[in-house]
Amino acid sequence: MLFDLDGTLIDSVYQHVVAWHEALLSYGVNLPVWRIHRRIGMSGGLFVAALARETEREIDEAAAATLARLHSEALERLRDSIRPLPGSSELLAHLSATGVPWAIATSGQRLNAEPALGLLGVPDAVLVTRDEVRRAKPDPDLFLAAAAKLNTPAERCLVVGDSVWDLLAARRAGSLGLGVLTGGYGRDELERAGAYRVYEDIADLFEHLDEVGLRQSG
Amino acid sequence: MLFDLDGTLIDSVYQHVVAWHEALLSYGVNLPVWRIHRRIGMSGGLFVAALARETEREIDEAAAATLARLHSEALERLRDSIRPLPGSSELLAHLSATGVPWAIATSGQRLNAEPALGLLGVPDAVLVTRDEVRRAKPDPDLFLAAAAKLNTPAERCLVVGDSVWDLLAARRAGSLGLGVLTGGYGRDELERAGAYRVYEDIADLFEHLDEVGLRQSG
Repeated sequence: MLFDLDGTLIDSVYQHVVAWHEALLSYGVNLPVWRIHRRIGMSGGLFVAALARETEREIDEAAAATLARLHSEALERLRDSIRPLPGSSELLAHLSATGVPWAIATSGQRLNAEPALGLLGVPDAVLVTRDEVRRAKPDPDLFLAAAAKLNTPAERCLVVGDSVWDLLAARRAGSLGLGVLTGGYGRDELERAGAYRVYEDIADLFEHLDEVGLRQSG
Repeated sequence: MLFDLDGTLIDSVYQHVVAWHEALLSYGVNLPVWRIHRRIGMSGGLFVAALARETEREIDEAAAATLARLHSEALERLRDSIRPLPGSSELLAHLSATGVPWAIATSGQRLNAEPALGLLGVPDAVLVTRDEVRRAKPDPDLFLAAAAKLNTPAERCLVVGDSVWDLLAARRAGSLGLGVLTGGYGRDELERAGAYRVYEDIADLFEHLDEVGLRQSG
């Protein structure tokens, strides 16, 4: 079982959105916040390309680096409000206890992902981050790398994510995608991106593991 | 034409969401942020009732007042990042120039709404706020009061809003509801709540006024 991190296991999407918005404003770019929300979870490179397209501005490498720094600073001010999402720690503990291999695959940097493992109580989780692959979501690289770390073909993995980018990447990896509403996308958007099933949150998925082929008895 | 304010004319929904989340956390309530997002725009009383139900806690009048204060304080720190949404000022100016009566009807307080009129360049707009009606959205009172101020039957009004609460209130008022995606709801959620048409933002609606019966020529 492969998990996205932000918006899926931890409740951090809105803080990232507001932080990107502040970063862009201080850089002189006024992009409506909902458009930033809809881009969260895709690779940083694609994010900046989409930005450039939507704002009709050129954003070179130096500008992208400045934006990333401004975003990190704004996020730091909001970091105290980031919590695990309902059911995350419980499901991960259950999978470990019943011998189901699992990993976390995030478009974020390892530096930002590691504190989240502490929040979730899984400091030794198998983790694949942006730094380790050539291309992030919606490319399949992150999920393919995570499946490889588990010695499992991606075709036999379930991918759980909150954004259309997770579900698109899951399809390209050949995995079955499960959506959760905790990132603030609508159910319909996730289904249209190819979700096999959509649950409210990880707690809701945990209650319905039999629907996705994982028996509660292990 | 009747307009919701936050998330429809001004880009303030995500700041409100994050501010409510901070207020709730400092009150000891950890409600996932997406659930707060889905409640924004409904009346404060219903918001608190929904909160109490979802968190299984009692929230009395004093607690509700404390939460409202904590929310205002958190919002204050984010207020600098609030901007008008694309097309808002242009459409309102066009309606005024072509003699189409319009008003703004918001579940927020007058105190919070008035600075937004300045942002939009319409300090003298017809405005109905939470303080003036018995019940806020999804009850129809705000839109009925706004229609009355325009001396127009609500049945002949178009209501523009970003949340399902706007569209539900529009239907109860007998008005035709138009949705915009700028509050971060999905298209499908707005259509299911009864939107006659859904546009990306006010700029997109402005380009398609003929679809809703308003000719560009006035």
